[in-house]
Amino acid sequence: MNASETGIKPRYIFERKIFFGDCDLLGIAFTGRITNFVLEAIESFWDDLLSGRGWLFLLTERNTAMPFVSMDLEFHAPVKAGAHLACEVYVVHVGESSVGLKVVGRQHDLICFECETKSVFRDASTFGKVKIESSIRQTLLAEMGSKIQTVG
Amino acid sequence: MNASETGIKPRYIFERKIFFGDCDLLGIAFTGRITNFVLEAIESFWDDLLSGRGWLFLLTERNTAMPFVSMDLEFHAPVKAGAHLACEVYVVHVGESSVGLKVVGRQHDLICFECETKSVFRDASTFGKVKIESSIRQTLLAEMGSKIQTVG
Amino acid sequence: MNASETGIKPRYIFERKIFFGDCDLLGIAFTGRITNFVLEAIESFWDDLLSGRGWLFLLTERNTAMPFVSMDLEFHAPVKAGAHLACEVYVVHVGESSVGLKVVGRQHDLICFECETKSVFRDASTFGKVKIESSIRQTLLAEMGSKIQTVG
Amino acid sequence: MNASETGIKPRYIFERKIFFGDCDLLGIAFTGRITNFVLEAIESFWDDLLSGRGWLFLLTERNTAMPFVSMDLEFHAPVKAGAHLACEVYVVHVGESSVGLKVVGRQHDLICFECETKSVFRDASTFGKVKIESSIRQTLLAEMGSKIQTVG
Repeated sequence: MNASETGIKPRYIFERKIFFGDCDLLGIAFTGRITNFVLEAIESFWDDLLSGRGWLFLLTERNTAMPFVSMDLEFHAPVKAGAHLACEVYVVHVGESSVGLKVVGRQHDLICFECETKSVFRDASTFGKVKIESSIRQTLLAEMGSKIQTVG
Repeated sequence: MNASETGIKPRYIFERKIFFGDCDLLGIAFTGRITNFVLEAIESFWDDLLSGRGWLFLLTERNTAMPFVSMDLEFHAPVKAGAHLACEVYVVHVGESSVGLKVVGRQHDLICFECETKSVFRDASTFGKVKIESSIRQTLLAEMGSKIQTVG
Repeated sequence: MNASETGIKPRYIFERKIFFGDCDLLGIAFTGRITNFVLEAIESFWDDLLSGRGWLFLLTERNTAMPFVSMDLEFHAPVKAGAHLACEVYVVHVGESSVGLKVVGRQHDLICFECETKSVFRDASTFGKVKIESSIRQTLLAEMGSKIQTVG
Repeated sequence: MNASETGIKPRYIFERKIFFGDCDLLGIAFTGRITNFVLEAIESFWDDLLSGRGWLFLLTERNTAMPFVSMDLEFHAPVKAGAHLACEVYVVHVGESSVGLKVVGRQHDLICFECETKSVFRDASTFGKVKIESSIRQTLLAEMGSKIQTVG
């Protein structure tokens, strides 16, 4: 079941051109590039969600990093050159220190890939686990709640 | 349970330097680079297993591609700059058309990440599933068998 | 003398976010990423100039490639994370088979880098030099002419 | 005139496999990847020259960075997949604060590209120019001298 079938509206849609240099001999995006598209989408999502105070701000101003614990990718269809890619980002889990995001990559109506990630908030110096700042956690929880409502 | 605990010897070990350009603000390899290390290790594994007749040969001479169906990554410890990374590659599944590989990334004795992948052999023109060439399949099965023996 | 000082209007401006993964330990875009920004800008320029019939179209539909002969980069100021980069693209040379483009990368009013490139149109199979298709050459020449007019 | 014609022995040769993911639709290394090969070669050169105390050490232990001022690339022949690339690194200029390196990329006997770079030693915090540490400068000058001797 994909996100659109559930009627859940994505939190955020990140769009990018697929460049010539993203593609391999087959004329499709190389797998190693796809993981980078996912990361671009997630970084953009955080900046959107936190009004520009995403990864970079948290690291440089709060000494907080949120490295990935896991990243599970399923590839459904090749990402083709010469067409845009839209990556929908969903909040799927909010813990005390951890957050789960899902990224769904589409070209037109076709789902090309899905990726579920889990990240943990850490002190950037000690790399010890830290609690998610309360205001960020509330924002994330609100995101999750809003998605229980179906569109139709 | 990691590979070394089972006493299974890896099929192949791919080594690479971690370059300055692989690392982010934290001085550790960026997650998007890690997925590329996994892909370099897998490409090198195929060339080693098939005596240089890996991805490139199969595509250009046999019109066969083996795109990934899934890639599940677990990150255990940061990959640090200034140290080599060793990626062990294991054959964990051999189907009629599909193959499962596991890559374990280490720096010294520390496991930094593990990645399980599944790929399907496809006709590079039609992208239809094809059976794995018999000689390749035998080689893969022999790899799996050899690993059932524990070292100790 | 930079482009803005001459009053020449750029043909095309390509904008992109500088991602966390583009940056190194210093928090600035790694040099190897900057060359990729230049290439993204040039690919986008061609698609804009030729109404979507740029690199990919020429290669797959006309069997024409335009590999680079040279790429001269000057770095004036670091490209910083957390700010957009604007790459202006100018046509600076049009030969029978070759084209020269200049890319100027800015963040806000600061010129971060300049890159002059030369490419040659080639048959993608034989890699022999080919003449630039007449309509494309006219378009390029018109671009050059239009830039002799100063803005002020 | 290429390096081998002068009979100058390279200071250092960096070798790497050309991976599938380095190559584009034409089956040759994408230009943006080539600039990264140059950077890998230069980083490896410094670590070799300074016994492991290259870019990373200078930055983290001496607070010294050596960002590029310029990078001039000439592409002579495509870098092909399925063959190793050897990058020769030469010291071509040593100033008070600046150093010029030349990288020549070959596959077998064919020169694929040449790149001349200039870098300036800078304080990593203020980004102000600093003098090259005396022992490093002597090592660089010795390198230049050794290359005036021709082989034949």
